[in-house]
Amino acid sequence: MEQRDLKNKEDKIQIKPYKKDATYSYTLGAFPTYELLLSKPEKVLKVAVHSTYTDMEGLKEICGKHKIPVEINDKLINKLSDKENCYVTGIFEKYGCELSEERSHVVLVNPSNMGNMGTIIRTMVGFGIYDLAIILPGADIFNPKCVRASMGALFKINFQFFETFDEYRKTFKHHDVFTFMLNGEHTLNISDCPKSERFALVFGNEAAGLDDSFLNVGTSVKIPQTDDVDSLNLTIAVGIGLYVFTNRNIK
Amino acid sequence: MEQRDLKNKEDKIQIKPYKKDATYSYTLGAFPTYELLLSKPEKVLKVAVHSTYTDMEGLKEICGKHKIPVEINDKLINKLSDKENCYVTGIFEKYGCELSEERSHVVLVNPSNMGNMGTIIRTMVGFGIYDLAIILPGADIFNPKCVRASMGALFKINFQFFETFDEYRKTFKHHDVFTFMLNGEHTLNISDCPKSERFALVFGNEAAGLDDSFLNVGTSVKIPQTDDVDSLNLTIAVGIGLYVFTNRNIK
Repeated sequence: MEQRDLKNKEDKIQIKPYKKDATYSYTLGAFPTYELLLSKPEKVLKVAVHSTYTDMEGLKEICGKHKIPVEINDKLINKLSDKENCYVTGIFEKYGCELSEERSHVVLVNPSNMGNMGTIIRTMVGFGIYDLAIILPGADIFNPKCVRASMGALFKINFQFFETFDEYRKTFKHHDVFTFMLNGEHTLNISDCPKSERFALVFGNEAAGLDDSFLNVGTSVKIPQTDDVDSLNLTIAVGIGLYVFTNRNIK
Repeated sequence: MEQRDLKNKEDKIQIKPYKKDATYSYTLGAFPTYELLLSKPEKVLKVAVHSTYTDMEGLKEICGKHKIPVEINDKLINKLSDKENCYVTGIFEKYGCELSEERSHVVLVNPSNMGNMGTIIRTMVGFGIYDLAIILPGADIFNPKCVRASMGALFKINFQFFETFDEYRKTFKHHDVFTFMLNGEHTLNISDCPKSERFALVFGNEAAGLDDSFLNVGTSVKIPQTDDVDSLNLTIAVGIGLYVFTNRNIK
């Protein structure tokens, strides 16, 4: 029934290049479209394919199973994609989620770059962390650039928005909080990574990092680095944090 | 004397948006321009500044020391930069380098993305690794996108091109080679990272990774990851490899 409602809605929507306030977004490329179809089929409005795409059968099979319309529509593909090598798009309804109380989290405070956010989501899923808190304001998680950079991993995670870090902290009181800061007190070495069964790894914005108020929230950690760079790239810092904490704590 | 030759040359060059076969390239933004001026002043042809830039004194001081011309040139800035918030550019002559036999290396086999290459260079410098081998074909290291993503760290490293990995290996016979592969034999855990005083960390192309012939070159390692992603992003894999090996081996 729900599927039918969505389709009726889709008939009335003229699909346009993405805007933040739209009720829908889309995947660009076959790989993320398959990830969408496998993880969130109930959110898919339709799949559009370029006439030169060669694997229609595979797409039709999975879409048929979920009664999702598939159409050949070169004009729509060209309209939505700014890259030449895009042959498939999946239009989906935006949705909300809630984080798991039981599992570990990543917390991004005011992330500003959509590509970075997508890369971080892909990395989280690569290390088995499926819950992302975003402290607002933050980049738009449903922007196609984020969806694309996540390689569709976005559809495998829970995400939740909070107005402030305090609001997050009041909602999840029992996580061990680790704030990643250039002036963090605990140097993150592989020989003595903190032990935690349920952690929240907190990272600041690309340009500014976390301000000093975060020194007093949980344990502040720094990734050792030379003075020859201003800082590590945010995605690299998150990748190293995730690798070390999951390697230490999930076996 | 050399400085004078460069300046004479610069007078004759009409600076244009970057092309791969040009003899010069440029930094975009104040931060990477300062890194250029600090690390490779002898390569700088001139510095151009937007009329709204507010720190002319600082730039003039360092440029004066090296007899590098500074000019206000909004037209040139607008021509070279595709972003609105660029106020400074440093035009520099391209140069070559050779890797150090004594120090550890990163080896990128056919890297294809200029932004990734810049991020990798920034990360190398962050972890104290200053030697990068590139197995051709590969992305253009002097492309302004790479320079920008490196945040100017490019000017602090040695890089060297090789036609094949064998050529690299014949040139540097004494490095312990570690190839990063999804089917690597040694799982890279923080508790048992290999010990090496002089290592070469080898990574494949963004799309294809390293082919199986690299299983028999040195020690193949894999970063543990879930089946929920196809692979980690290349820059993340390099970041984790660098973090673990430098943390384990340089103290």
